[in-house]
Amino acid sequence: MKLSRRDMLKGVGGALLGTALGAGSVLVARDRLDAAAGPSVAELPWSYKTLDLDSAAENAYDGYYAGACCYGAFHSIITELAKTVGAPFNTIPTAMMIYGEGGIAGVGSVCGALNGAAAAIFLVAGGMDKKKREPAFELIRDLYTWYEQNPLPDYKPRKPKYEIIKSVSRSNLCHASVSTGCKAAKVKSFSKERSERCAWLTASVARHTVDQLNKYAAGNLKMMSLSSEVKTCRSCHDQGGAIENTRGMMDCGGCHFKGPSKHVKI
Amino acid sequence: MKLSRRDMLKGVGGALLGTALGAGSVLVARDRLDAAAGPSVAELPWSYKTLDLDSAAENAYDGYYAGACCYGAFHSIITELAKTVGAPFNTIPTAMMIYGEGGIAGVGSVCGALNGAAAAIFLVAGGMDKKKREPAFELIRDLYTWYEQNPLPDYKPRKPKYEIIKSVSRSNLCHASVSTGCKAAKVKSFSKERSERCAWLTASVARHTVDQLNKYAAGNLKMMSLSSEVKTCRSCHDQGGAIENTRGMMDCGGCHFKGPSKHVKI
Repeated sequence: MKLSRRDMLKGVGGALLGTALGAGSVLVARDRLDAAAGPSVAELPWSYKTLDLDSAAENAYDGYYAGACCYGAFHSIITELAKTVGAPFNTIPTAMMIYGEGGIAGVGSVCGALNGAAAAIFLVAGGMDKKKREPAFELIRDLYTWYEQNPLPDYKPRKPKYEIIKSVSRSNLCHASVSTGCKAAKVKSFSKERSERCAWLTASVARHTVDQLNKYAAGNLKMMSLSSEVKTCRSCHDQGGAIENTRGMMDCGGCHFKGPSKHVKI
Repeated sequence: MKLSRRDMLKGVGGALLGTALGAGSVLVARDRLDAAAGPSVAELPWSYKTLDLDSAAENAYDGYYAGACCYGAFHSIITELAKTVGAPFNTIPTAMMIYGEGGIAGVGSVCGALNGAAAAIFLVAGGMDKKKREPAFELIRDLYTWYEQNPLPDYKPRKPKYEIIKSVSRSNLCHASVSTGCKAAKVKSFSKERSERCAWLTASVARHTVDQLNKYAAGNLKMMSLSSEVKTCRSCHDQGGAIENTRGMMDCGGCHFKGPSKHVKI
């Protein structure tokens, strides 16, 4: 799926400043206020300006060691925007996103880097109105599909602590991604090497997110497709299917029908 | 696990205003600034004040229909705090949290209500410093265990659209929780009845979160335990175990060794 500039304009849904477009950046009028929030909160989407990929990645890597995965990805993108756009990005308490560490407070649910990146995407590409949500949702889904299907991490920081082996997670879940990475590298899940993998992964996710947003702003983002397997599953189990008993766009086969039905004997 | 007032004081980690404690509320000094964010962003944790449970639940229910599950839970708690505490809660762009809808942009990953509630918890009970994260993480884990182990939704809104049957999800994932609820109620996953279930669930999660925070602030929160099954799994697979190949505190048996190893013949 390729988004045209027209789609993008519809997507961000705001009054774009034409002069800024020529410079490869997107600025959305912030004169409308979010009535649901406080009187001083600007309505979404907030202004986006083309960012440097490697700078975002390096900041996310450092951010991982300061506040873990979710904070690392979110803080990197928001502070890059605070530097280039300014307000209101500098009013966000990015430390709130530390909550997403280790699949949210170490619970092992959704990968924190993906969680933080999704919040940042929605802030600059989403909106309260249902129609305004979809462009951001499409970007987020594209990011999640990329994460599940590709050998990661695909960004090596300038000053790495260890060398990291790539692996395909087939899941957006922290505990599944960690297990896959540990198996590939033959390291333990609480080792420094595993932690370094998550730091590279945070940098990779932040870099890819910024790459998506830059292309989206320029109107030339080409999105990935769900795998044919997932499409087959969804044709029966998702909206409009004969069974219609679930929802989602995760890589079904990453978990379902994969392992044994019983634990090995111990 | 019961948190004493002493633990709570250590937890919020700030200079508590002694006079406010007597009134059953917690106010944390906001004179320290988050150096990592903008110059005007107050350091975490932000002030918390005892909130009304049913008011939070009703607002979350309405919030679900305005901006879905993640927004519903987060917006409810933050706007309740904006009303009772004021700044800086009224500076938060709560619409950002719409991203968590349907397990993040409809992907079916972590339940949005849980995701939004976790962010709100961290804002009022967490902090940048590693030691300050733990009290918030414990609260979040406790919320997630409660969600997995209990028949939900356990809050019925004042003006419900449908009657909803309770079920035990054994998972913090949207698609798993949706499937369990659909099976129990014999409804389809994109039906209005399923949507109403998620609205009740959002209200239930917001209400329970506020109940946790109120008790935490009063120093009398008693936390749940992980199930013995999860403890057994973690004794080998988590930190310090012989295998140590994953991390997490999800209900392992909610997904693993549950279904058949192959799809039924179609």
